[in-house]
This record gives sequence, C-alpha cells and structure tokens, in this order.
Amino acid sequence: MAKGGDRRALGKLLTIIENEPSKAVEILSKVYRLDREANVVGVSGIPGAGKSSLISQLILQFRKMKKRVGVLAIDPSSTFTKGAIMGDRIRMGSFENDPEVFVRSVATRGQTGGVARSTRDAIRLMDAVGYQVIIVETVGAGQLDIDIQKIADVALVVLIPGAGDIIQASKAGLIEIGDIVVVNKADLIEANLAVQELRTWISFNVNGKVNSANSWKPPVLKTNSMTGDGVKDIITSILRYLEHAKKTGSFHKRREEQEYWEVLDRLNMVLWDKVIEPVTQEYKKVIKDGLWKKNLSPYSAANYLFELIQKEIGDAKTTK
Amino acid sequence: MAKGGDRRALGKLLTIIENEPSKAVEILSKVYRLDREANVVGVSGIPGAGKSSLISQLILQFRKMKKRVGVLAIDPSSTFTKGAIMGDRIRMGSFENDPEVFVRSVATRGQTGGVARSTRDAIRLMDAVGYQVIIVETVGAGQLDIDIQKIADVALVVLIPGAGDIIQASKAGLIEIGDIVVVNKADLIEANLAVQELRTWISFNVNGKVNSANSWKPPVLKTNSMTGDGVKDIITSILRYLEHAKKTGSFHKRREEQEYWEVLDRLNMVLWDKVIEPVTQEYKKVIKDGLWKKNLSPYSAANYLFELIQKEIGDAKTTK
Repeated sequence: MAKGGDRRALGKLLTIIENEPSKAVEILSKVYRLDREANVVGVSGIPGAGKSSLISQLILQFRKMKKRVGVLAIDPSSTFTKGAIMGDRIRMGSFENDPEVFVRSVATRGQTGGVARSTRDAIRLMDAVGYQVIIVETVGAGQLDIDIQKIADVALVVLIPGAGDIIQASKAGLIEIGDIVVVNKADLIEANLAVQELRTWISFNVNGKVNSANSWKPPVLKTNSMTGDGVKDIITSILRYLEHAKKTGSFHKRREEQEYWEVLDRLNMVLWDKVIEPVTQEYKKVIKDGLWKKNLSPYSAANYLFELIQKEIGDAKTTK
Repeated sequence: MAKGGDRRALGKLLTIIENEPSKAVEILSKVYRLDREANVVGVSGIPGAGKSSLISQLILQFRKMKKRVGVLAIDPSSTFTKGAIMGDRIRMGSFENDPEVFVRSVATRGQTGGVARSTRDAIRLMDAVGYQVIIVETVGAGQLDIDIQKIADVALVVLIPGAGDIIQASKAGLIEIGDIVVVNKADLIEANLAVQELRTWISFNVNGKVNSANSWKPPVLKTNSMTGDGVKDIITSILRYLEHAKKTGSFHKRREEQEYWEVLDRLNMVLWDKVIEPVTQEYKKVIKDGLWKKNLSPYSAANYLFELIQKEIGDAKTTK
C-alpha cells in the first residue's frame, strides 16, 4: 500500500485500478468503508469560471490547516491538470514540491459510467492512504457522466458575473446542486449584482426545496481566485456546512445514497460483462443483417436479445 | 401523424415519446427505417463558440434550398432555444413564422442514456413527417451523455480563435470528431492563425486515422456567424462530405453502427425495467443495511444482486 504520502506509489495504484477492473475490486474491497474519513469537496462550474485557480487557493488554505489534500480533475478543459490528457497523467502544478498534495486527472472518455466509477475508486484509495480533503473538479451539472452530488460531501458551484450567465447556469441546473455558491472574479463590476441575483434565485428555488432535508440555505460568496480574496470565507462555509450536515444527519444520508448508487452502477457493469457483452457479440451479425433487411427494428432487436439473455441465464442456472 | 409540417402536432408527439416509453416504441416501430431520408447534421462546440447563431445561418441557407429543417438542441446553455428549460419546450426564435422550420430542445437531465434515446427518437419522428435536414446542437465531446458521432451523418465542430482554445479543444477530443471544422468569429485577428494550427493538427492527428475509413480530410473553414460570411462554404462542404461518404460506403456503415448502438442502448433499458429495477427495489433495504454493517462492500453487494437476478430470470424460465 502507498502509505505516508508516497505519491508515485499512489499514482501507480490508481493506474492499476483504472485499467484492470478485476484487480480494482480486489484492492478496493480491502480498503472499503462507508464511514471514510476524507471529506470530498466538489467544485463545479462551466469552463472559464476559474475553478482551477480557486482550487489552488483552497489547497493553500487546507495546507495551512495541515490537511493532506488530494485533487481529482474530471473537467477535460481543466487548466489545473493542463497536459494531463496529452499523456502525463500526473501533474502537480505549483504543488509539485509539496508531498502532501496529490493531483490527478480522471479520464473522461470511455464507457458509460466509467468516469463516476474511476472517481469513486480514486476517492476510496486516496482516503485509505490518508488524504483528508479530496477536491473533485467537474464541469456543469450531470455532464460528463458524473453528478457531483453523487460523489461529494459538499458541493461548490463556481460562477462568474456577467449578463445572462446566472440565467444560463440556472437553466443548466447548475445552481441548485450547490451547497455553497461562489461568484468568482469579484473584481468585475457586475459581481455585486450577480450575488444579489443568486441570493434571490436561491430563496425562490433552492431554499426549502432541494436542500430541505437539512434546512441549509446555500450561501453566496464572492471571491477572486487570482488574489485569494474571499477564499477563507469559502473554507469557513465548507466547515460550517459539514458540521451542519453531520448534526442534521443529512451527511450520512447522502453517503448512504452515494454508496447505493454505486451498487447499482457496479451491478450494471457486472451484467454488462457477464451477460450483455457475450450475448450481443455472438448475435451482432444477425442483428445487423436484420436491421438492414428491415425484419428487425432497434426495438424488436432489443427484445430479441433480452429473450436470448433470459435463456442464457436460465440455462446456466438449470444446468448448475 | 403530424404530416405536412404541423409543428404543434409534432411537438405533442415528441412529448408523448419522451414521457411514455411504451407508447414511444409503438409509435416509432411504425416509422422505423434504417435508410431514413433526412440527413442529420451535428454541430458541436463549447459554450460561447457561437453554435446557435451559426445554426441560424445554416437554416437560412437550407431554406433557400427549399429544405424543411428541424433543429434539436441538446446543449443546456443553447441560446437558440433560450428559455426552453424554463418550461416552454418549443421555441422558434426568428423562425417562428416559417412553418417549415421546427426547433426543439432535448431535456438533458434524467437517467443515463436518456438524452441519446430522446434524440434518436426525435430524429426518427422528424424524418417520418418529412424534415429533410435535422441539425443537432451539442456541447463538447462525449459530454451530456451523447456522442454526436453516434447520432449524426456529418459532424461539424465549431471553435473560436484564441490563445489556448485549440489546445483545449484537442485535449477534450473535440476536433477529432469533426468531419468539418469551423473557426467561428473569423473577424478576430487570431482567426487565420487558428485555421493554420487546426490544419496542422488535423494532418498530424486526424487525417488517415479517425476518418481513414473514408479517406476524407476534414476541411477547416472560417466563418462569421453574425454576418453569415463563410456559411455557404460550410453548406458546400456538408454536401460534399455526404456525397463522398455515400460513394465510399462509410455513410451507410456509420448508420449501421448507430443503429447497433441503439439496439444495445435499448437492451440496457429493457434489462433495467424488467429485471434490475424490480430486484434492486426489493432488496434496497437489505443492501443499505449491509453497507452500514460492513458485511457488504459495493462490490460484493453488486455480485449478490447479480446472483438474485440470475435466479429471478432462471425461475421465470423454468416455470414457463
């Protein structure tokens, strides 16, 4: 195991669990615990909102608190892990000389559900080797196959002031996923107006609805991620939120939901590997021919394959 | 059926197939044909690239050619269907007085695979009622649960000139999905440089690789979607690409692949509805308790559910 902050060993382990699903289960079963210590901080927002520089500022603050910090960047346009997709999967940015900070990008292409799975696995492993705060950087809401609410203990949404941006973000379902809403680039003159708009939007739409389970009213905070202004307030809000969520029980409830989602996701993967993939491969040509000859529509083809799968599983069972 | 351009009737049909899966299969089975007449033009790019205004220009050109044009906006930040997510699902923008143009946004939240499914269904229905060109607007590559290559006959990637943008787009896998690459906002002084960079990038990375099946070299075109400059060249390239793809056979090959993906997607849905959902609902409490008591990990829980499903299907078969 990669104990005590050996980043290179951790990086290798992460590569193994990403590329070899069977080994992943073996490794992760050993370190699994629902009551993990690490707190996962999600940071979402559209490209250009300044998420990466804000995360750098958050790392600085958490380091002052002597926390070991891990970062997972899912946003393919992340400047935080610039170059990651080009090949070098581990980049440290300005933290490469701090052994207590670990930064990694999560591959965003591949099979459905793959990103969520890789991210959960990485969180579990980083928790096991002692990272206390794990920051996950994502784009948007429900994009890239990951919903930050299904991963994070606390979700930050980062916006920038500007005509129409708040409206766009609300339409994309971005604001409502935030436990804390951050208006970055607070030096822009529209910043105060954006904060006002967001507070109004939240009192109408979020407060008493999405977060009613824990009666938390998402604060709207101004920051300037280039200078670091306002970052301490964000840290304070993160800690306040976690305390509040633990007191009301919503913290544990969210983790329980997250684990259950993971079970369903893994079940899907098992079904795919053991049943769907083998059966569909075998009948691929038959299906394709049928589609062209028009005796099959995609709807009837799916039902046909389903019946084959039923037969397959039934046979396996009865000959046991 | 909504024949002859009755947009309101088409809108209602689309709402039915989105909300009532069983009726959807009934309706769509009737209109299914692999050799659909409508050509699907995918338009991808990051938010802010000017996709919506470019699409407006494309509509104008296709209308001059007397084509009936449908538009599906999957990008939640689309300004083309501004307000769509707020409630009114059908907006016509500046085309509301043209009965031969139909614009609709596709809901981007919901279950995995839902966006791709809704989009395919909508394309099929719009083809059946006589739309000849269907433009699909999406964000990025592989984002929002949809890959434009799995939907479109020809894919346009829209970029804007600017330091780093091309690099970011290439990292996100955006350029390589384009059969035609468009540099929008050609009035910016960086436009010519961007075109050069893209041509270089394409000759190194795309040409002879991704599109090697049909030996097509993606052209890089400059446009200004506000003035319409360069839009005719894009139309010419779209037509040239389609002609080329039909001649080499890659057009039909791509459609066949798309239909096959759809079969797998539908199979997944059938499995979910008929097997996974009922079984997991029944055992939800057992699983959650197990996770907390730590006698179950998400990995063992998934295997446990898989065995239950095998039993379920096997029983159904042997008692038939």
